Amino acid sequence: MTADPAEYSGRLRRVQQRMQGQSLAALVVCDPANIFYLTGYDAWSFYTPQCLVVPACGDPHLFLRAMDAVGAVALCNVAAERIHGYPEDLVHRPDTHPFTWIATAARALIPAGEPVGVEGDANYFSPRAYFALADGLPANRLVDAGELVNWVRLIKSPYEIGQLRIAGAIAEHAMRTACERIEVGRRQCDLVADILTAQTTGTAGHGGDFPAIVPMLPTGDGSGTPHCTWTDRPFRDGEATTIELAGVYGRYHAPLARTVMLGEPPQRLAEIAKITAEAMQATLAEIRPGATGACVHRAFDEVIRPHGLRKDSRLGYSIGIGFPPDWGERTVSLRREDTTELAAGMAFHVILGMWMDGWGYELSEPIALTPDGFERFTNLPHELTIRR
Amino acid sequence: MTADPAEYSGRLRRVQQRMQGQSLAALVVCDPANIFYLTGYDAWSFYTPQCLVVPACGDPHLFLRAMDAVGAVALCNVAAERIHGYPEDLVHRPDTHPFTWIATAARALIPAGEPVGVEGDANYFSPRAYFALADGLPANRLVDAGELVNWVRLIKSPYEIGQLRIAGAIAEHAMRTACERIEVGRRQCDLVADILTAQTTGTAGHGGDFPAIVPMLPTGDGSGTPHCTWTDRPFRDGEATTIELAGVYGRYHAPLARTVMLGEPPQRLAEIAKITAEAMQATLAEIRPGATGACVHRAFDEVIRPHGLRKDSRLGYSIGIGFPPDWGERTVSLRREDTTELAAGMAFHVILGMWMDGWGYELSEPIALTPDGFERFTNLPHELTIRR
Repeated sequence: MTADPAEYSGRLRRVQQRMQGQSLAALVVCDPANIFYLTGYDAWSFYTPQCLVVPACGDPHLFLRAMDAVGAVALCNVAAERIHGYPEDLVHRPDTHPFTWIATAARALIPAGEPVGVEGDANYFSPRAYFALADGLPANRLVDAGELVNWVRLIKSPYEIGQLRIAGAIAEHAMRTACERIEVGRRQCDLVADILTAQTTGTAGHGGDFPAIVPMLPTGDGSGTPHCTWTDRPFRDGEATTIELAGVYGRYHAPLARTVMLGEPPQRLAEIAKITAEAMQATLAEIRPGATGACVHRAFDEVIRPHGLRKDSRLGYSIGIGFPPDWGERTVSLRREDTTELAAGMAFHVILGMWMDGWGYELSEPIALTPDGFERFTNLPHELTIRR
Repeated sequence: MTADPAEYSGRLRRVQQRMQGQSLAALVVCDPANIFYLTGYDAWSFYTPQCLVVPACGDPHLFLRAMDAVGAVALCNVAAERIHGYPEDLVHRPDTHPFTWIATAARALIPAGEPVGVEGDANYFSPRAYFALADGLPANRLVDAGELVNWVRLIKSPYEIGQLRIAGAIAEHAMRTACERIEVGRRQCDLVADILTAQTTGTAGHGGDFPAIVPMLPTGDGSGTPHCTWTDRPFRDGEATTIELAGVYGRYHAPLARTVMLGEPPQRLAEIAKITAEAMQATLAEIRPGATGACVHRAFDEVIRPHGLRKDSRLGYSIGIGFPPDWGERTVSLRREDTTELAAGMAFHVILGMWMDGWGYELSEPIALTPDGFERFTNLPHELTIRR
């Protein structure tokens, strides 16, 4: 449990208000980031089914595997009598599912006849879990409540912005380490060990938490594939590496991407680096309350289009709390089609990933919107890093 | 892509044989470990929807986000014409889902009227994905094929046992590092950095891969909660820490757990350590082809019961390939209720986690069954480690 009680009660109130708007008698929350947001519960227990049942009014109930339920009261704001452990023999069984037990136990908490919301696209909520829940709540209709809690998370409190600032300091430290320690002949895995050390030791005042995504560093021929992790092959002279990592503090993520060239950069790479830095300036200049992803994308596009370039993937996404496998919030994206009005307190990873045929270039900034513009969480140059 | 072509063709053949047994025209595989098993595809792209469509006969098709599809041909055994990228603007959209696109594209590959298998409880296959797939394949009926590919993975090939041996060497190195570097006053996160470094640098010959679960090290008051990760608080004199980690090589996992005491162990801890070491000997002595989880559990129980102890959670589970959030295969568990006959080539994490009221003790061994017994992948003493 990390935040103060008023922070949690405000979060719950906003979730229950949205639930009311959808006439939900209860919401079954499975996304570990959403459970953490509402309760502070943080353990690597999400590999077996678990959920928070949020009633229309009143306090939520947490359902965990028995082994995890025992000590959970010390880890979150849920009172012991509202933490329920399902029996150990239900774990990974082909003939039954923990959500059958959970549905039976939750039935008393949910008025019959009323719709119950689920997170239809959450990680760690499977179709089998869905059907077990539906069968176990025959007097209720399940409805996909969309990313209801995720949307409440969109505007960060001052406390959350503070967590993101610390995460930003850790991200900057990790990226500096990466850019300094990469060298020709060194194994990729050895550089990654240095990055992980920087992420985890953090700063003297603030130790780092585990990232929702491990460092990704596509290099050489593979640098056109953004989500490659690493191998034990050495870095080679004449090759570029894109590095994407996050600083993490108390589950809040500040992701950051840069590109490093070992040796003399080919002209096409030097050019794309220059254009991307210019595009980043133009993109950031549009970010303020009242703008939309569409305006931001237009500013970016106006810089790259004259160079014959195009980019189909989004320019960024909302960030905050993250659990594996993703540090994005799955709500607002900075792209042509997004019409959400940006507002103070939103936080984004603005990432310009330029994916060419067989190679790539990445430059990013984690930021938050302020009343009249934005705040950067890291402070590193926007140029291509060259190690000769 | 890590294994040789014959390895992959044998895996596909065994999966298609099982599919035939269930009369499936196709199987939609979403579990990243299963996709890796069949194709070698390995990237942190599973945070957006992806799947491998395995037809009843013939070669599978891989569906990924466009950004990931571009370079995927270099990462796996799937030919370029069988890799399909869905448009970037479908990522994290509230009004549509990538599986709608995937279903439309896959329709031509699947005979109408035939049942199509899905992995109903796989990670990264959500209810919304399921319903989009069902709607997009109106001429087919979706059936939960259970853990079909996972069961094929149960018996490891000599190549896979070789990967697990390397993973075991890395696990042993990481655990030795953890037990040597833990000390009173040191921040938990600083010890974790050393563990991560050992896991990632691996050995001189074999660099380590990322683990499906980060190191877990519940300590002091929290040592009764098995899946706690770490904080930036210092280790304290008079407190025990249980450490669970994995050595990972080419996605194969050898998990390992030990308990370390800083200072003089309380009598109850020393006693449980002694009983658990004895129980481990008894448990391992039962592991051989022809035994079942039930026999193994009985041998364990006969050691602990006279001491007034009981353990409801399983004593182990099948291991091999792992992707976040789990390094278990979700098939055979070593427990009372499991009647699967053990066989040569199966690999297990035998983990004796003794969870008491507010404290815990862990001791484990990653092993594989041989024709007449078992092979250990690590070689560390079974005693409580005491750092005075």
